[in-house]
Amino acid sequence: MTLRIGVLGAGQLGWMLALAGAPLGLRFRFVDPNPDAPAGRLAELIVADYEDPAALDALAECDRVSYEFESVPVAAVEALGGRVLVCPGARALGVAQDRALEKAAFARLGIPTAEFLTVASDPELERACASLGLPAVLKTRRLGYDGKGQVVLRRPQDIAGAFDAIGRAPAILERLVPFDRELSVIAVRSERGEIRSYGLTENTHRDGILHLSLAPAPNVTPALERRAGEIIGALLEELDYVGVLALELFQVGSDLLANEMAPRVHNSGHWTIDGARTSQFENHLRAVCGLPLGATDALGPAGMLNLVGHVPPARELLAIEDAHLYDYGKAPRPRRKVGHLTVRGPTLEAVRNRLAVAEQSLAKSSG
Amino acid sequence: MTLRIGVLGAGQLGWMLALAGAPLGLRFRFVDPNPDAPAGRLAELIVADYEDPAALDALAECDRVSYEFESVPVAAVEALGGRVLVCPGARALGVAQDRALEKAAFARLGIPTAEFLTVASDPELERACASLGLPAVLKTRRLGYDGKGQVVLRRPQDIAGAFDAIGRAPAILERLVPFDRELSVIAVRSERGEIRSYGLTENTHRDGILHLSLAPAPNVTPALERRAGEIIGALLEELDYVGVLALELFQVGSDLLANEMAPRVHNSGHWTIDGARTSQFENHLRAVCGLPLGATDALGPAGMLNLVGHVPPARELLAIEDAHLYDYGKAPRPRRKVGHLTVRGPTLEAVRNRLAVAEQSLAKSSG
Repeated sequence: MTLRIGVLGAGQLGWMLALAGAPLGLRFRFVDPNPDAPAGRLAELIVADYEDPAALDALAECDRVSYEFESVPVAAVEALGGRVLVCPGARALGVAQDRALEKAAFARLGIPTAEFLTVASDPELERACASLGLPAVLKTRRLGYDGKGQVVLRRPQDIAGAFDAIGRAPAILERLVPFDRELSVIAVRSERGEIRSYGLTENTHRDGILHLSLAPAPNVTPALERRAGEIIGALLEELDYVGVLALELFQVGSDLLANEMAPRVHNSGHWTIDGARTSQFENHLRAVCGLPLGATDALGPAGMLNLVGHVPPARELLAIEDAHLYDYGKAPRPRRKVGHLTVRGPTLEAVRNRLAVAEQSLAKSSG
Repeated sequence: MTLRIGVLGAGQLGWMLALAGAPLGLRFRFVDPNPDAPAGRLAELIVADYEDPAALDALAECDRVSYEFESVPVAAVEALGGRVLVCPGARALGVAQDRALEKAAFARLGIPTAEFLTVASDPELERACASLGLPAVLKTRRLGYDGKGQVVLRRPQDIAGAFDAIGRAPAILERLVPFDRELSVIAVRSERGEIRSYGLTENTHRDGILHLSLAPAPNVTPALERRAGEIIGALLEELDYVGVLALELFQVGSDLLANEMAPRVHNSGHWTIDGARTSQFENHLRAVCGLPLGATDALGPAGMLNLVGHVPPARELLAIEDAHLYDYGKAPRPRRKVGHLTVRGPTLEAVRNRLAVAEQSLAKSSG
């Protein structure tokens, strides 16, 4: 039984899906407007816009369809959903694409999240600032990622140009939460409703882009781990979700606040390739194909460093003990994720030290 | 620095090299006469004989050349060696292709091996049987694998048709050693002479084809492990070898007898994909590319079951805890290796039990 998997988007996430799916005997058909998209080096790539009718027809010929990119038009996914099994479904995608709907889902499930108000005009922004107080963050409802489409308002004089700065797109204003750290939880749900969750991951961002992940996150109490599992479990059930879902969280004391979700495999789960019994990529595909889910336990302490801008010399990175390079084969460019390094070690301290060597290599080399 | 790697042979070993090499940023160009060869699904495949001048020209354009198949003509590899760095080199390939040269190398290095005599005619076979005694094995010097090109002589009346049975090809007659078990050792050597060795693996064959591997091999004394490392280290040095070398061994009491080597990644090392810090495939490529070698420690107990003939339903295999499927995408056929399953577990006993479930699945399904 060779299943053909259609995937919207052929970036590095698609590339890692292809690497995880080939051993399972899966064949891939990717659609991406970029002819140089990484997944195209490993599988069939149809170069087309995500709404191109011929490309959608080609995807409808597959046995299953998924996506690696959540800004796919919901209408395209809905139309496809009538012709082929699409996982996760259009409803989950619609909720995850819109910060207001996402926040509403959190609220419906009793999942704590930073207070927010929707904003569609300058007067609404003024009123929202007055109501929530500053500091606050103005975020577009749609299409924000890696810190794009956001502006932080700290003082009253920041309010004036803010709505212009985000392109006057429908937005939310969110109270800026003074959190202790950023965590994420990734889980997978099968067609039959089985759920397996990876442990909490600690994430550090730089300039709005994920910089480094540590897993299992240090200093996590069993109660916190359990709470993370409950939260993502409730979301998976609510959205009747099939596949991998990622949820970014803020830790505030012993509480977790939901920040945002991604209806796909996620950068903060790249450590699972080398650090967990089954990677997030393999588990996503297992779920999409109706196969039994794989164990999500960590193999031991692990970490991930994003290679942003350029990939340092492989000979430097691979001299680091138990380090594994993922070079996406993308042209170097400032702020572009072009690869990552996973590192394992006997302790999280050892992992941190090994990642620090890689960070030095990244800092002193240039693209 | 994107290196282009040319590979002679695009079977499952090439396919796994491509899977291991993609994350390192390597680009592959395979040559194989079979248009359906598995590696062709992941990378460029030139469909041609191994001596085709245009195909060899295309390989010479690569930065490095290797092979996944040791029956490549030495002349082709020698000619390529003048134009591009070929790892392992033609000399290692020549020795590994010829059982008599291989045995001579073992002898030169003081590595114990079953007694043997070369045989090129019926009278020579008669004399060799008289000299070594029966039981003995008649093996072609070249092109034998998976039990092909071999015939066991147990009684004097077996001698008559034996040389005909192996096609009257130049051969060796080898004393049949009553061994306790079959082991293998796999090691990798870098351009700079650094050597890293995987632990001893215990192998079980069925009908001359590798059936099951366990690693680390149970009941191995430190002395035996050390001896295996010395033997393969001596071979790597002697052959000025760059890349992964596999050596099959017989254990007889507390001694190791060298059986045969393979100048390439090896079926008995497939467990390293999930069971070692760095897989044999990644380490071969690191060596070929002049990159630092990766750690070869086992992550814990692991095993591998070859899927011979057909691949059982994925839903059965993946229901086994910590099991990982490698479906080569080959058409089912009796005695054909079409996939393998790696399994990890907290103990070798657990690994054995998990593999037993997979064996049952293989036995009760059909291609």
